[in-house]
Amino acid sequence: MGESLNGLKRTMMCGEPREEHVGEKITLMGWVQRNRKLGGLEFIDLRDKTGIMQVVFGEEINGEAFEKAKAVRPEYCVAVIGEVVKRESINENMPTGFVELKCETIKILSESETPPIYIKENLDAAESIRLKYRYLDLRRPDMQKIFMIRSKTTKAVRDYLEANGFLDVETPILNRSTPEGARDYIVPSRNYPGMFYALPQSPQLFKQLLMVSGFDKYYQIAKCFRDEDLRANRQPEFTQIDMELSFVEQEDIMAVNEGLIAHVFKEVANVDVKLPIKRMTFKDAMEKYGSDKPDVRFGMEITNITDEVRDLELPMFKDAIENGGSVRALCLKCGAELGRKPLDKLGEFVKTYRAKGLAWIQFKEDGVKSSIAKFLTDDVTNSILKTMNAEAGDAVLIVADKNSVVFQSLGALRLELSKQFDLIKDKNEFNFTWVTEFPLFEYSEEEGRYMACHHPFTAPMDEDLDFIESDPGIVRSKAYDLVLNGEELGGGSIRIHDMQLQERMLKALGFTQEDAWKNFGFLLQALKFGPPPHGGLAFGLDRMIMFLAGTENIRDVIAFPKNQNAYCYLSEAPNVTDEKQLIELGIGILPKEDKKEDNN
Amino acid sequence: MGESLNGLKRTMMCGEPREEHVGEKITLMGWVQRNRKLGGLEFIDLRDKTGIMQVVFGEEINGEAFEKAKAVRPEYCVAVIGEVVKRESINENMPTGFVELKCETIKILSESETPPIYIKENLDAAESIRLKYRYLDLRRPDMQKIFMIRSKTTKAVRDYLEANGFLDVETPILNRSTPEGARDYIVPSRNYPGMFYALPQSPQLFKQLLMVSGFDKYYQIAKCFRDEDLRANRQPEFTQIDMELSFVEQEDIMAVNEGLIAHVFKEVANVDVKLPIKRMTFKDAMEKYGSDKPDVRFGMEITNITDEVRDLELPMFKDAIENGGSVRALCLKCGAELGRKPLDKLGEFVKTYRAKGLAWIQFKEDGVKSSIAKFLTDDVTNSILKTMNAEAGDAVLIVADKNSVVFQSLGALRLELSKQFDLIKDKNEFNFTWVTEFPLFEYSEEEGRYMACHHPFTAPMDEDLDFIESDPGIVRSKAYDLVLNGEELGGGSIRIHDMQLQERMLKALGFTQEDAWKNFGFLLQALKFGPPPHGGLAFGLDRMIMFLAGTENIRDVIAFPKNQNAYCYLSEAPNVTDEKQLIELGIGILPKEDKKEDNN
Repeated sequence: MGESLNGLKRTMMCGEPREEHVGEKITLMGWVQRNRKLGGLEFIDLRDKTGIMQVVFGEEINGEAFEKAKAVRPEYCVAVIGEVVKRESINENMPTGFVELKCETIKILSESETPPIYIKENLDAAESIRLKYRYLDLRRPDMQKIFMIRSKTTKAVRDYLEANGFLDVETPILNRSTPEGARDYIVPSRNYPGMFYALPQSPQLFKQLLMVSGFDKYYQIAKCFRDEDLRANRQPEFTQIDMELSFVEQEDIMAVNEGLIAHVFKEVANVDVKLPIKRMTFKDAMEKYGSDKPDVRFGMEITNITDEVRDLELPMFKDAIENGGSVRALCLKCGAELGRKPLDKLGEFVKTYRAKGLAWIQFKEDGVKSSIAKFLTDDVTNSILKTMNAEAGDAVLIVADKNSVVFQSLGALRLELSKQFDLIKDKNEFNFTWVTEFPLFEYSEEEGRYMACHHPFTAPMDEDLDFIESDPGIVRSKAYDLVLNGEELGGGSIRIHDMQLQERMLKALGFTQEDAWKNFGFLLQALKFGPPPHGGLAFGLDRMIMFLAGTENIRDVIAFPKNQNAYCYLSEAPNVTDEKQLIELGIGILPKEDKKEDNN
Repeated sequence: MGESLNGLKRTMMCGEPREEHVGEKITLMGWVQRNRKLGGLEFIDLRDKTGIMQVVFGEEINGEAFEKAKAVRPEYCVAVIGEVVKRESINENMPTGFVELKCETIKILSESETPPIYIKENLDAAESIRLKYRYLDLRRPDMQKIFMIRSKTTKAVRDYLEANGFLDVETPILNRSTPEGARDYIVPSRNYPGMFYALPQSPQLFKQLLMVSGFDKYYQIAKCFRDEDLRANRQPEFTQIDMELSFVEQEDIMAVNEGLIAHVFKEVANVDVKLPIKRMTFKDAMEKYGSDKPDVRFGMEITNITDEVRDLELPMFKDAIENGGSVRALCLKCGAELGRKPLDKLGEFVKTYRAKGLAWIQFKEDGVKSSIAKFLTDDVTNSILKTMNAEAGDAVLIVADKNSVVFQSLGALRLELSKQFDLIKDKNEFNFTWVTEFPLFEYSEEEGRYMACHHPFTAPMDEDLDFIESDPGIVRSKAYDLVLNGEELGGGSIRIHDMQLQERMLKALGFTQEDAWKNFGFLLQALKFGPPPHGGLAFGLDRMIMFLAGTENIRDVIAFPKNQNAYCYLSEAPNVTDEKQLIELGIGILPKEDKKEDNN
C-alpha cells in the first residue's frame, strides 16, 4: 500500500521553483516523468500540472531517501521534501532548469504499472487507446493546457455576461420532446410508463419563457444533446454558451456579443478582435463564397459569368441557364501551369458536390488552353478573363448548374484550393464575420414542405412579412451567425413575440392549429401574456475552445468524450441494464428480428 | 400585432429613477402592474425586474399617448418615453416614489389576457397553477429575487474556487449505469439497441479520474439525476457544487470549504460565518441529537439514563437493555404543566418512528407525576431528574428501545418540540456544524449485507483499517458532512487511492472480484497508475439557495421544476413519443397487463 500523507503539506508546485528559492526547504508532490542514475546519484523529473522539477537523491544527501528513490518508476506518485539548490548543468529549456531539489525525504504515495501510452506532448497513439485510458491521456501536458483554456474561457464568458447584467439560470434536462430539429435522446418515465422525457437539443423554449417572465437577460453554459449520426466533429452531448435578451433588436444582440468575443479572446488568447466585426448578408456569402460560413482569410471569390457565356452552344451551360441556374467561376492565381491530371482531379472533386463537371480555361503566356475550347470564341474568352480579372498565368474554373449546386461545389472547391495552394497566409489569424439576413424557410424535397432554417420561433424581417404565405422562399429572417475562419462559431435570431405571427409561421411550416398547440402550446400560451420583444444567440463552446486551443479534434476539448458511435471507450457506456428496471419503466427490448422487419 | 421597437432603446430600468433624474428624458420598458384614472389623468405602474415606476398620461402632456394609455391593461408589455418629474404625492414605500414619468410616447409592444395568477409577492395560489403558468409565476418579484440570489451564489462559488486554483471541468451526462445508490434514469441507445446510458447521480467516478489525471483541483456546478420516489423537497434533477482535490487530507478539504462557505454567505446574504466551523463526531451527533444532521440552534440534548433505570421492573426498559439497547430521555423545560392529551400525542409521535411508546416524568412544584409511576422508586426518580438536570416545572420524556430507534425517535421528538415550544430563538441564525467520523458501512436488513454509508470509494480511518473484514460495523470513515440548521448542506470524503484497499472494500460490500471489475473496472484500472491521495465534497446547490433565499420549498429555487411525480405542469413532460423512434431504439412499450404481472 502507498504511504499516506499523514499531515504532510505541499508547499510549492513543481513548475514554480526558481533561483530566488535557493536555500528554501520545500515539499513537492507529483508524478515521476523519468528517473535516471548518473555519477552515483539518482535523478527524478517530478511533474505536476504546472511543470517539471528535477529532484536529486544521493547517499550523502540522505541515504534512506536515496535507497527508496532507486525503486521509483515512471508515473509513480510521490512527495519529496528537500532544499532548493542551484543546478550545476543548467537546462534553459525548463523554467525550473536553473535549480534542483536535494531530496531528504521521499514518500511513495502510490505505484504505477507501465502506462499503456506515453505521458508526453504530441502523442502519436491510436485514439481508441487514448480514450480507453483517458485518465492517462489527460495527464499529458498538452491536454491539461486545453482544459485550463476551457476553464479560463467559461470564466471569462461568465465574468463578462454577469458584469453586463445577465442572470445565470438553469433550465431542465428532463424535457418534453419537440418536433423540428434533430433526433432527441429520450428517457423513459417510471411514474408514467410508456411516456418519455427528452434531453434538450437547446434551452430554446425555456429561455424564451424566461424572457416572458421578465428575466431581461439570461445566460447559461448549457449541456445540449442530439442523437445524430455523428460527423467527425460532433458529439452526442455538447455545450452551448446560451443567452437571451429582452427589449432588444438584432443590433443590440450583435453589440453585446462583439463585446463578449473581444473580451474572451483577449483574456484567453491575448488576441485583439477588431470591432465592429464586419458583416455580410447570406446572399453575398453564398454568391461570393458559396457558403453561409465563408472563410474570408483569402480572396478567390466566386464570380458570375452567366452573361458572358449566355450565347455559347455548350449544352452544360445552356441547360443550366435555361433551368434558372447560372454559370460561375473561380480564378486560381498561377493555375495556368496545372497539368491535365490535377485538373481532372478537381473535376472529380466538384462532382462529389453534385456538379456535372468542371470547365477550365488556362491563360498561359503563349495563349489560352481550355477544356471547352471548341465552344469558345475569342470574344467570349476575353470577356470571361476580363470579368474574372485573370492575368497571364491564372486558370479560370467554371461550374454551370442550378444555383445551389454551383454555390456548394464552387464553395467547396475554393476551400480545397486554399489547402492545395496554401492560400491562407496567417495561420494565427482570427477572422470574424457576421452573416445576416438568412432565409426564414428552406424547402425540403424530402418532406415536401418548407422547413424553418433556424427554428420555428425566428422572426421574419419586417420588409418580408407579407410573403410568408405567398412566397416563403424569399422571406428573410432576423437571424445572424458569427463565423470564424470559415466555421460557424455561433448563431441566433430575434424571436417572434406575437402569438398571431407565431401561428402564421407554424402554419407556413405545415402545422395544423391543433398540431401547433399540441407541440408548442406552452409557448403559444405564454405569448398571450405580454411577451417582450426578445432575441438571443448561442455559441458552440466546444468549437470555441478548439479555436482557442488550436486543435481540430473536438474530442481533445471534452474531458470524457464519446467516439463517432456515441460510445465511451473508458466506461463502456452504453451498456446493458437490469431487466427489473426495464419492467419498472414499462419497456422491453425488441428482438433483433423485429427491429429489422420494422425498418424495412 | 404589437408595435415593434424600431430602433428604440431603453435608457433606464424601472426601479432606477430618483430625484436627481428630474428633468431628464428617459425611455422605460416593462409590464403594466396596474393602471388607474385620477382627476382626468391616466396612471400606469410600470414594472421590470428592478422595480416599479409611476407613469402619468394626460391630454395636456400628449394627447395621442393619453388615448393609447386608456387601452392598456395589466401585464401589457409597453415602452414609454417622457420626462422625469417630481411627484406631487410622494410614495415613500417605493425607491422611485419621489418621481414619476410624464409620458409623451407609449408603444404597446404586446397585449396580455387577464393572467390566471396575480403578479405580486406572497402569492397564495395552488402550486399546480403556479407551475403550469410558470412564466407568469416567475414574473413575481419574490421569485425574481430568488433567481438573482441563485445567480449571485454560483458566481460567488466560481469566483472563490477559481481564485483558489480549481479548474471547472465538465463531466458527461450520458454515462454508464453503476450499482450502489439510488435508481438511475436511463437513456436507450440507438447505435446499440438494447443498451442504455444512465444519467449521473453525481460526477463521482469522473472527478476521481480527473485526480488520477493530475488535474489537482476540480470543480463543477453539476446537474445530477435520481429516479426516486420524491420526498417533498427532492427533485428528479438537482444541482451540486462538486469538487475534488489531490494531495490533501480531510483537514485541507474542510479548510477550503470553510473559506468557500464564508465567502458565499458574506457575498450573497451579508452573513459572517464564524470560522473555524465547530465539529462533532457522528457518534456524538447521534447520542446528543439523535441525528447525523443535528440542529444545534437549541439545546435539549438527549441523555442516556440506562444506568439510572437498569434495575426497574419495567418490561419496556428491561427488554431494551437486555437486547443491547438503551433508555434515553429529553428534558423539556416547563413541560411539567403539559396535560394528558398533548403527552399522548407526543407518544403517538414517537411511535411513527417505531418507538414502542413514550414514558414521561413531570417534575411539578407539588411533586412528581409519571406515566410509569408505579415502577419508579424515589431514588430512581431523583437520580433521573438529577442526571437530566431537571428543575421544578420540567418534564422528562423517555424512550427505551434498540439504539437506532431511540436515536431516531428522540431526535425527531426533539425537533418536533422545538417547533411546538418555539425553542429556536433567532430565526436568522446560520448555525454550521461539521459532522465527522461517519461509519464506513451500514448493515442493510433488506439486502442482508453491509452497504457503503457514503459510497464504495470512501476511505476508512487509518485506525480502523484492520476491522474491515472482521467487524465492518465499527469501522469509521474519512467522511464529513457540513450541517446547517439541522439540514445537510453538503458532504464528502477522502477517497481510497489504493487498488488493493479498494478491492478489499468492494469485497466487504459483497462484490465478487468479477462483479467489482465489471462495475467499477475503469476506476480500479485507473488506480493501478499512480493515483494521488485525493478527496472531495459536494454541496446541494438547491438547498443552499433555499437557505440564502429563506424559502422551504425546493420548487421555489428551480426555474422550471417538476412535481412530486416528476411531472412538469408547464411542458407536460414526460409525454408520448414517436413509435418510429422507439423502433429505432429497439425498444417497445410493455402492455399494462404484462407490467402488473411482472411486478407480482
